[in-house]
Amino acid sequence: MNGRLILSLLLLTASVVSFSQEKSPRKSKKHDAAITEKGLIKVSVMYPFAEGKTFNMEYYETKHMPMVAGFLGSNLVKYTIEKGLGSGIPNQPLPYMAIGTFYVKSLTEYQAAIAPNRDAIRADFANYTSIAPVILVSEVVR
Amino acid sequence: MNGRLILSLLLLTASVVSFSQEKSPRKSKKHDAAITEKGLIKVSVMYPFAEGKTFNMEYYETKHMPMVAGFLGSNLVKYTIEKGLGSGIPNQPLPYMAIGTFYVKSLTEYQAAIAPNRDAIRADFANYTSIAPVILVSEVVR
Repeated sequence: MNGRLILSLLLLTASVVSFSQEKSPRKSKKHDAAITEKGLIKVSVMYPFAEGKTFNMEYYETKHMPMVAGFLGSNLVKYTIEKGLGSGIPNQPLPYMAIGTFYVKSLTEYQAAIAPNRDAIRADFANYTSIAPVILVSEVVR
Repeated sequence: MNGRLILSLLLLTASVVSFSQEKSPRKSKKHDAAITEKGLIKVSVMYPFAEGKTFNMEYYETKHMPMVAGFLGSNLVKYTIEKGLGSGIPNQPLPYMAIGTFYVKSLTEYQAAIAPNRDAIRADFANYTSIAPVILVSEVVR
C-alpha cells in the first residue's frame, strides 16, 4: 500500500517535472527567436543583375561565403545566401542575381575583422563572379 | 488496491505522454530552424535612398507591414523589417533607406493574395514614404 502510494507520488512528480521541462525550453526558444535578429547588424552583399554577367552559386556557397564567415568569429550570428528569381514588379528586370548576408552583433568588430582580409576576399571574387557588388549595412528593426 | 494500480498506470501514461510531447516539438522546432528558411521565397520590398525622400519607419512597422502580412494567411512564414544605415563601400551613398521582407512558402499563393489588395497597399504608400520601391523575389539557398 505504502509502496504504491510512493510510486504514485513519484510518477506525479515525474510528470510535473516533465511538464515544466517541456514548458521552459519552448519559452526560452521563443524568447531567443524574438530577440536574436532584432537589433542585429546585417551586412548584405548584393550582386546586381546585368546582361552577360555571371555568378557561380555553387562556388559562392561552398567556398567564398564560408571563407568570409571564418574571418568573423563569434561576432557572426548567422549568414544567409539567396538567389534572385525575378522582379516583383511587371516588366522590371531582376534587381539582383544573388545576395549574401552576414548578421553580426557589432559593425565595428565586423570592419576590424574584414580589414586585414580585404585583399583575400577581393581576390576570390574572380572565382565566382564578374559583378561588382553593392553593399548595404542595415539594422534589423523586426 | 485496484484503484491505486489504475492511478499508477494513469500517471505512468501521463508522464510518458508528457515526455513524448516534450520531445517532439523540440525535435520539430530544430528541424524547422534548419529547414524553415532554406527553399522559402523572399519578397523584399526595398526603398532606395535619395536626397529629399522620406520614410516613416514607425508607420511602416506598426501599420503598413502588419496590414500586408494580414493578407498573406498561412503562406507567410515570417516577415522582417530593416533600416538602412550606410553603404559598406567607402564614399558610396546609402543604397536603401528601408527593406521589408516577406518569407513565403509559395510565390503563386503570394501573388494570388496580393492581387485583390494591390490598390489598398499602394494607397497606403503615401502614408509613410515618397519613395517608389524596388521589389526582389528570391529563393533562400541557405
